[in-house]
Amino acid sequence: MQDNRKKCIELAERIYDLDIEVYECVGSSLGRTFTGDRRTCVENLANLMSTRPQGHLLRSELALISNMARTIRNPQDKSRVMKKYDDILKEVESLPTSFGQGEIVDQNRAKLNTSNLRQKFSKDDHLIICIGRSQGSAGNDIGFALADALRINYYDVEIFTEVLRRLEVEKDSIRDVADLGTEIIQNKYQRGFNSVKGWRNKIKEFDRYHGLTKEDAIFFNQSDLLCKMAKEEDFIVMGRCADVILANNHIPHISIFITAPFEQRVHRIMEVNNLDYKRARRLLEKQDRRHEKYYHYYTGLKWGDAMNYDICFNSASYGIEESVDIIERMLNQNMNH
Amino acid sequence: MQDNRKKCIELAERIYDLDIEVYECVGSSLGRTFTGDRRTCVENLANLMSTRPQGHLLRSELALISNMARTIRNPQDKSRVMKKYDDILKEVESLPTSFGQGEIVDQNRAKLNTSNLRQKFSKDDHLIICIGRSQGSAGNDIGFALADALRINYYDVEIFTEVLRRLEVEKDSIRDVADLGTEIIQNKYQRGFNSVKGWRNKIKEFDRYHGLTKEDAIFFNQSDLLCKMAKEEDFIVMGRCADVILANNHIPHISIFITAPFEQRVHRIMEVNNLDYKRARRLLEKQDRRHEKYYHYYTGLKWGDAMNYDICFNSASYGIEESVDIIERMLNQNMNH
Repeated sequence: MQDNRKKCIELAERIYDLDIEVYECVGSSLGRTFTGDRRTCVENLANLMSTRPQGHLLRSELALISNMARTIRNPQDKSRVMKKYDDILKEVESLPTSFGQGEIVDQNRAKLNTSNLRQKFSKDDHLIICIGRSQGSAGNDIGFALADALRINYYDVEIFTEVLRRLEVEKDSIRDVADLGTEIIQNKYQRGFNSVKGWRNKIKEFDRYHGLTKEDAIFFNQSDLLCKMAKEEDFIVMGRCADVILANNHIPHISIFITAPFEQRVHRIMEVNNLDYKRARRLLEKQDRRHEKYYHYYTGLKWGDAMNYDICFNSASYGIEESVDIIERMLNQNMNH
Repeated sequence: MQDNRKKCIELAERIYDLDIEVYECVGSSLGRTFTGDRRTCVENLANLMSTRPQGHLLRSELALISNMARTIRNPQDKSRVMKKYDDILKEVESLPTSFGQGEIVDQNRAKLNTSNLRQKFSKDDHLIICIGRSQGSAGNDIGFALADALRINYYDVEIFTEVLRRLEVEKDSIRDVADLGTEIIQNKYQRGFNSVKGWRNKIKEFDRYHGLTKEDAIFFNQSDLLCKMAKEEDFIVMGRCADVILANNHIPHISIFITAPFEQRVHRIMEVNNLDYKRARRLLEKQDRRHEKYYHYYTGLKWGDAMNYDICFNSASYGIEESVDIIERMLNQNMNH
């Protein structure tokens, strides 16, 4: 403790001197950062360094000095002063009581974050990017373009459903693959198509899903498939609460949420779905609620809340192409895993 | 219209053939993507391409094919197939009715987004990064470290206050700079210090702030200063609703929000402020409410909502150092402006 105090006073002296030196080099009209007498200033600075939680105020003082130092015209002066500043900063940050301490990282979370891949992961881990998005934010377009740019697989709800149905067919060996294919296409494309299932099918479903509701069964089947795939390949997955499923199964991934201001999304929906303003608005409100409910039901978390994802993007700021570029740049250092 | 339909059918034929070719190369147990008869499949595909909003389903079909194509072992086969896929994709995206259309970018927003700097801005524009953050997320530490890494200025509330007070002193020429300096240090460091102001000061304040409340006056003074600085230098500014102020004044910038899960922030506050769990929790709840109220009062927007920022970061996923690295990588292409 005594040692720490001594170190703080020594650093305070050096900071005070640096301020004088910067002022002499730059001669700012705003005057020096420390304008009281030397003894008082040094004592105040040393107190800041040795007492929490005031340590962060020291950062402001240092920033004031370095902001000014960066305006020094003479390159030799500037480089000499900045060198001193860097040295002081490093020592201040290593003090146990100053602003340098108090890491925010959540080890469990960081351990699962693939964008730290190079340092922390084995080369058997795959690059898995989970993308959540609000309707109308072009999140799907960004995900698809990103998969294409990274040359990795892309999975959305339609693909999941199709893959699962095919796997089921293989397992059941009841119906012919070709027939099922046609049926999928009919179900998918002819939205009005209403298949009469009757009780026989309902009972069959109950058996098949071990008593779960069909929705829950689909969710758990998709989750299983997701975890299985995650062990075999790199991919991008849209929605499906994939971020939470992978986290719960301790599988490294990156979670990204893509959104855009409400009005911007309304206008995109109007254009893409050919709706008037009022209908587009209503559709969007409904879809946002549905998304929120689904995510909360399966994860207990608030959908779209920045603290639940690694990164959130505003697609209205970047557009589709630039969003892909930025995500690529972020991942850049890890692409050679 | 007739032309578009013809083009869609031609593309549908090519997609159907590509699926056959991929299946022949890879022989997946899941079978081909299109399992119905040729005529029906091609018609369905062409319909998808020519009718909105079903266009996005086509993306899933294409993804299924390319997901499979990427597993082709023979390099020549793979490169031939992927070339065909890329060509088809480009043509599909250029169709007026398929998923390629419907940009999400908000031109006004994008015009002000400095991370698009290289393409869109004059070289007189400065790199200004506005960082909002929730208490306990280490947002200030990240901002400060980022400013240091980028070698640009750093402004937080303490620095703003100090710069403004000094400018005021210059303007008023009432008190001696040295005295004020001491006073600032006293006010800042000795939090308990209670200066007796009396009516004379209150009246002086009323005059000085043109009848605004002191808080409003400070806010507007800071806003003025911010806009003035933005024309002169690169910098990072913490809080102050700087993102909205700059947007309203049509000044390019990047807005970033940094947060972390509540529990993680509580633990950081416990450590940094030396508080027990209950007190840390209460402090954080209070500060979050205060932040929210302040931001909403001056901007009308919801503080911390991902759609109000360009990018949100979860500091619990990355920690301080890695957050700085990622932001640097994102900005990378623009650093030589």
